[in-house]
Amino acid sequence: MSKQHLVILQPSGRRGHVDEGISLREAARQLGVEIESICAENATCGKCKVVIEEGTFERYGITSKREHLSGPSAEEADYFRRRPKMMAANNWEMGQVRLSCQARVLGNVLVQVPEESRGNKQIVRKSATQREIEIKPSIRKYLVEMTPPDLEKPIADWERLSRGLEITMSVVQRGEENLPKAADLTIDYQCLRGLANAIREGNWRVTVTVWQDKEVIRVQPGYVEKSYGAAVDIGSTTIALYLCDLETGEILAAESEMNPQIVYGEDVMSRIQYAISEPDGLKKQHKAVINILNQLLKQAVKTANQSHREEGDSPTRRSPVERGESREEEIATPASQARNDISTEDILEIVFVGNTTMHHLLLNLPPDHLGRSPFVPTVHKAVDVKARELGLQINLSAYVHVLPTIASFIGADTSGVLIAEEPHKQDENWLIIDVGTNAELVLGNRHGLVCTSTPTGPALEGAHIEYGMRAAPGAIERVEIDDATLEPRYKIIGEEEWNSPKGDTAGKAKGICGSAIIDAVSEMFRAGIIDSRGRFRRGLSTTRVRDGENGPEYVVAWAGETSIGRDIPISLKDIRQIQLAKGALYVAARTLLKSAGLERPDKLILAGGFGSYIDKTKAMIIGLIPDLPLENVYAVGNAAGDGARIALLNVEKRREAGEVARMVRRYELPADPEFQDQFMLAMNFPHMTEPFPHIAHLIPHQEVDPIAKKLARKS
Amino acid sequence: MSKQHLVILQPSGRRGHVDEGISLREAARQLGVEIESICAENATCGKCKVVIEEGTFERYGITSKREHLSGPSAEEADYFRRRPKMMAANNWEMGQVRLSCQARVLGNVLVQVPEESRGNKQIVRKSATQREIEIKPSIRKYLVEMTPPDLEKPIADWERLSRGLEITMSVVQRGEENLPKAADLTIDYQCLRGLANAIREGNWRVTVTVWQDKEVIRVQPGYVEKSYGAAVDIGSTTIALYLCDLETGEILAAESEMNPQIVYGEDVMSRIQYAISEPDGLKKQHKAVINILNQLLKQAVKTANQSHREEGDSPTRRSPVERGESREEEIATPASQARNDISTEDILEIVFVGNTTMHHLLLNLPPDHLGRSPFVPTVHKAVDVKARELGLQINLSAYVHVLPTIASFIGADTSGVLIAEEPHKQDENWLIIDVGTNAELVLGNRHGLVCTSTPTGPALEGAHIEYGMRAAPGAIERVEIDDATLEPRYKIIGEEEWNSPKGDTAGKAKGICGSAIIDAVSEMFRAGIIDSRGRFRRGLSTTRVRDGENGPEYVVAWAGETSIGRDIPISLKDIRQIQLAKGALYVAARTLLKSAGLERPDKLILAGGFGSYIDKTKAMIIGLIPDLPLENVYAVGNAAGDGARIALLNVEKRREAGEVARMVRRYELPADPEFQDQFMLAMNFPHMTEPFPHIAHLIPHQEVDPIAKKLARKS
Repeated sequence: MSKQHLVILQPSGRRGHVDEGISLREAARQLGVEIESICAENATCGKCKVVIEEGTFERYGITSKREHLSGPSAEEADYFRRRPKMMAANNWEMGQVRLSCQARVLGNVLVQVPEESRGNKQIVRKSATQREIEIKPSIRKYLVEMTPPDLEKPIADWERLSRGLEITMSVVQRGEENLPKAADLTIDYQCLRGLANAIREGNWRVTVTVWQDKEVIRVQPGYVEKSYGAAVDIGSTTIALYLCDLETGEILAAESEMNPQIVYGEDVMSRIQYAISEPDGLKKQHKAVINILNQLLKQAVKTANQSHREEGDSPTRRSPVERGESREEEIATPASQARNDISTEDILEIVFVGNTTMHHLLLNLPPDHLGRSPFVPTVHKAVDVKARELGLQINLSAYVHVLPTIASFIGADTSGVLIAEEPHKQDENWLIIDVGTNAELVLGNRHGLVCTSTPTGPALEGAHIEYGMRAAPGAIERVEIDDATLEPRYKIIGEEEWNSPKGDTAGKAKGICGSAIIDAVSEMFRAGIIDSRGRFRRGLSTTRVRDGENGPEYVVAWAGETSIGRDIPISLKDIRQIQLAKGALYVAARTLLKSAGLERPDKLILAGGFGSYIDKTKAMIIGLIPDLPLENVYAVGNAAGDGARIALLNVEKRREAGEVARMVRRYELPADPEFQDQFMLAMNFPHMTEPFPHIAHLIPHQEVDPIAKKLARKS
Repeated sequence: MSKQHLVILQPSGRRGHVDEGISLREAARQLGVEIESICAENATCGKCKVVIEEGTFERYGITSKREHLSGPSAEEADYFRRRPKMMAANNWEMGQVRLSCQARVLGNVLVQVPEESRGNKQIVRKSATQREIEIKPSIRKYLVEMTPPDLEKPIADWERLSRGLEITMSVVQRGEENLPKAADLTIDYQCLRGLANAIREGNWRVTVTVWQDKEVIRVQPGYVEKSYGAAVDIGSTTIALYLCDLETGEILAAESEMNPQIVYGEDVMSRIQYAISEPDGLKKQHKAVINILNQLLKQAVKTANQSHREEGDSPTRRSPVERGESREEEIATPASQARNDISTEDILEIVFVGNTTMHHLLLNLPPDHLGRSPFVPTVHKAVDVKARELGLQINLSAYVHVLPTIASFIGADTSGVLIAEEPHKQDENWLIIDVGTNAELVLGNRHGLVCTSTPTGPALEGAHIEYGMRAAPGAIERVEIDDATLEPRYKIIGEEEWNSPKGDTAGKAKGICGSAIIDAVSEMFRAGIIDSRGRFRRGLSTTRVRDGENGPEYVVAWAGETSIGRDIPISLKDIRQIQLAKGALYVAARTLLKSAGLERPDKLILAGGFGSYIDKTKAMIIGLIPDLPLENVYAVGNAAGDGARIALLNVEKRREAGEVARMVRRYELPADPEFQDQFMLAMNFPHMTEPFPHIAHLIPHQEVDPIAKKLARKS
C-alpha cells in the first residue's frame, strides 16, 4: 500500500486519506466532490481552481501547507501569471491558488473549492416542494488540443479532432460510464463545413461543443467558455422565452409576446380548423410562430447583453489582459474576444413545451387529427430536430428538443409541468391544474397518474369579458366588496395603493384582468349581489347594480376613475362566462377525482401564470377549484415553462419526461347527458351538491338551489 | 420429437427434413435458402411465391403433392385470385403456386423457388476476378399494417407505426441479429411531416422505407414495391450517373455530362485555387456540380421511364387489374397507381465517388488545404448527409453517402476502385492504375496496400492535343502504321470498318481521341517515324511527315477524309504531351513497385474509361504501363463508378470501404532531383534503363539512348 495523506475539502467538509501523488482533482473525486474541467487536465481551461488554506487547524486535526502539494508546472505558473487582475480581485497569491488537475498530493492539505469550480452545479426549483436540479445540459464543451498534421501524418481534420476529443472527454468525464469512442462520434454536416478553418484559426486548439455526448455541433477556435440555450413555452395566447446560461442555469433574459397565430383563431380548435380548411393554413401558422420566435430570440440576446453591460462588467470595455485572459487566447480568437456579447449564434439548443396543437404547428405537422375523434397526435415521444429545419435563426447546427405529448389535448406543456412538479415521485395524491385557454388536469402519485383536459375558454385570462384585458399596467387586478354598503375597493396593476372606499384612486383603470374578475364575481356572490345561480338579486340598495346594454350589471369603477372615460362594470354576460369556465374546470376535477376514488386531493397545484395571481379563497368560494384546506393549495406559476427550462438544463429530466408521459393514463370526460347535468350544476356557486367545509363560513348568503337539490337526489 | 417431412428446394437442390407444420418460408430458411418478404408474413406482399412440383421424382426420392401443404387461407387465395394475368402469364394453377409464408408443411414436397422470390439476390461484377455481390442496400422496404386507433387507444401515429414496423421487421428478418426495437427506430423530420396523411391514405397499411434498419425515411400509402438509388462518379472532367433498381441491382439509366466546374479550372489544383482566391469560389463550384447532378437525375428518370415504356410493359397503359394488382391497392393509392413511372421522389439514396477535391466541392467543404502541404482533407471517413442539405432534388428524406477519402490526392474514387477490385483480398500483388486527369495507383495484396497519385494531365483523355477530342462519334479511336510504307489505317467511332490503306474511309474523321493518340505515338515509334526520345527522324520516304505550324508532324488523315476539311496530324508537341503523361505515370508505378521491393506486379489493373479503350500492347510499347505478360493486364472500365454502385447495392461493402481506406498506406513521390532525372528518363520510349522483355520483339527500331545509358550507370 502506498503512502497516504489527509485531504479535507471545504465548504463540503468532505475528508479522507488518499494515495500520495494523485492530483487534487482526482482526490476530490475519490472523496465525492466533482471539480469542473473542460480541458484534458492540461492546465489550460482553469476551471478546476482551488485555494489552499495554510496553517494548523486543530478543529480539523490537520496542518496544511502549500508545500504539501507538488509545485506548479510551467504551464500552471503561466496560467496564473497571465491573470494578474483575477489574482488581485480575489486576493490570491501565487502558489496559494492552484489548478487541482496539476497539483499532486504530497502531504496533508485543507482545500477550498470555490463555487465556480464545483462540478454538478444545481439550480433550485421552489414549488409545492423545494428541489435541487443538477445542471447537466445536453450540450457540453470540451477543449481539444491537437498535434498539427505533417507530411508523415496528414490525417484529415475530423479524424484528428475526434481522436483529440475522445481523449479530452475521457479525462474530463473520468469515472463516468459509456464514454464515447472517437469512431462513434459524429459531426453535424453544417459544422463539418467550418471545421478546417476553425481548427487552423485556433492553431490546433479548439473548443468543441458536443450534443448528447455524441454529435459535435460547434467547433470554435481557442478556448471559449460559455454556452447558452433557450426554454420556450408556446401557449395558445402567449409565448414565453427564457434565455439561459447552460453552465449556471441563470436566466439571462425572459421575453414574452402574444402568439401571432391568434389572428387565425383564438383557441386550438379554430387553429386546427384553419389549418385544415384554409390554403396554406398550416404553413401560415407555422411561419407565424417561427417568425415571432426569431424576434424573441433576438430580443432576448439584446436584453442579456444590455443587462450584462449595465452590471458594469462588460468585457467589451476591458482589454483581454484586464479580463485575466491570456495573450495566446487573444491571438487565437481575436473576433470572439473583441466582443464577448452573446449572439443568436451562441444559442445551441432550444427546449419547447406547448399544448399538442401548438406542438404540431411549431413542428409544421398537420394538426388535422387532433380535433376529430379518436384525437390522435402525430407523435408522442420527444422530438429532436435541427433548429435550421424549422427556420429558427440560432446556431446552424443547434438542436430543438420538444417535450413529449401525452394525448391530443394533453401536450408537451403538461410534460413540462410533470417534470417541474414531479407528482410521480409523491406519496400523496396531487391534483395539478394548468389553467390557460384550455385547462389540463393531472391527478395521482408515484403509483399512477391520470389526466384529462377541458376547454375553459379565455374568460379566466380576461378575454371575452366586456372590459376584460390582460394582466398589464392599468388593469384592475384585485376587487373587494363591502358586505354592508356593496361598495367596491380595487387595486390596479402598477399602483402601490388600493383605491379608497370613496372611489378616489391613485391611478386610472383601463380594464379588468382575470384575477380581478374572479375576485369580483366571488365578492358579488359573497356580498349577496348575485345568487348561487349567478342571477342578480332584485331591490338592492346600491346604484352600482343597474340594467346595462347586456342586461343587469355591477359597476366596479365609475367613468371618472378610469382612463377610458367609461364605467367599468361586470355584466350578467361576464358572470356567465366565468360560470362556464369554472363549471368546466370544476366538473373535470371532480370527475377525475371520482374516477380515482378520491374525495379530494392531498395537495392542489395551480400551474400557469393565472394560478399565481388569483385569490385562492375567492376562487374556492365560487367553486373554481375544489374545496380543500387552503394551505394545501399551491400556485406554482408557469410550471410548463419551468419544465422546459429544467429539461434544457438537465438531460436526464428529458428521459424522465418520456417515462412519465408514457405512464400517464388518459381519462376522457364522458359525453353522456348525465355528465352534462353535472356540468350545468357545476356552474352554480359553489357546487351545491358537495360539501365545502373549508369556505362555507365565508358565504353568509349561502342557500341551496332547488334544481341542485333535485339533481343531487338523482345522482 | 415432432413428425418430420422431406423438403427439396430447386434450383438450389437444398434438401432436408423439417418439422411438420412450419411454413415453407421457414423450412427454406432452415435449409439455407432465404425467400423474400416485406410484409409480416401476412399474405400481402406476394414476394415469397413458390411453385409446387407435383409427382413422384425417383431421382430425388420424393413424392410431392400440393396436398402435402396446408390449403391456402382466405387471404392467400384472395391474393392469387386478384392476379389472373400473372397466373396466366406464368401458366400457374391455383394451389400450384403458393405464398411460402402461408403454406405449412404437412408432407414431402419439391418446391421451385423462382428467381424473383429468392432473398440474398446478387449482382455479378466481372473484373480481374469474377465476383458475386449480394444485394443488400441500406434502404429496405417493409409493409406495415396497423390497427386503427380508437378512443380507447388513441396512441400517436409514430408510436403506432414504429410498433407495427418492429413486428414486420422481426418477421421479415427472422434469424438476423440485432433486430431494431421500436424505441430505437427514428423517423426523418421531413418524413414525419407527411406521416399522418400517408397512414390514413393507406387505410392503416403503409410501405415503410427504412435506412440502415434504423431511420424511417419514407411512408407510402398501401403496398409499393420498388426502390431506387443512384451511384455517381464525379470526375474532374466527366460526371457519370447510374440510376439503379435497389432490388435487382439493374442499371435503369446511365447518364453522363461534362463536369461544369471545368470553367473554373481544368484540373483539381486550379479548382482549389479558384475556391481560395475568388469570391464565392467554393459556393459557385458547389452549385455548379449540384445543378448538373439535378439535371442528370431528372434525365436518368426520364430515360428509365422511356425504356420501360419501349419495352411495352408500361403499367400506365394497362389497368390495375391487368397488372395483377388488387382493387384494394388501387383504391388505397390512386395517385401512385395511375402512373407507375419513376420520379426523382423515388430516388432514396445516392452514393458518390470522386477525387478528394471533387468530394470537397460536392460537400461544400473548403478545399483550401488539399493543395498545400501537408495536404490534409477535412474528413476521411464516409459522409452520410441528407440530400436536401446539399440541394439535391430527390426524395426529401433521402441520404447521400460519399465513400471515404484516403488522402488529399487519393479520394473516394479510389475507395470505390478498391471495393470493386478487392486487391485487399488477393494473395497476388496487384497494381491498380486509375487513369484520369490525375492517375491514382494502388499496389499490394491482402497483407497491405500502398498508394500514390500523379498528375498525368488531360492528354490521355484527348485534351491538350491539337486535334484531340473526347471518345465520341467521329473520333479516330484506333491507328495502325505500316512499317514499310509508313501509311496509316484508322478506325472511327461509329463506323464498323477501318479505312482502307488507300485512305478512303466509310466515315469522316472529326478528330482523334485518347486511345488513338496512344496508338499513333506507339506506331510512329515502332515504325521508326520517331526515335526513342520522341524526335522525328529525318529523311523518311513519306509525305505524311512534314513541318507544320507546331514543328514536325505526321498526318494521320488527309483533309479529304475528314469532316473538318483539314488534315489531322500528330505533332511533335502532341508527342511531348503524351511523353509527359506517360513519364509521370510510369515513374509513379516504378517508384511504388520499388518501395514495395517488387520488380513487377502479378497483375496490372487499368481502371477508368480510358483503360478500356487503349491497346494494351501499344501502351506497353511506349512505356505507358510497366512491362509484364499481356495476359496479366486487365482493363476494368470505370471501377470507381462500379464501386459507387456496389456500395449503393450492398451496405456491407461500405463498411469494407472504410476498413480498406484506413489500411491503405500513402506513399508520397519524392521531390528530389534524382527523382526528377528518373522522370525525364521515363519520358523516353520505352524506359530504356529497364528491361521490357514482353514487348521488346515488337520494336524493330529499338535503340539505347546515350543519356539513358549514362543515367542508368549513375543510378
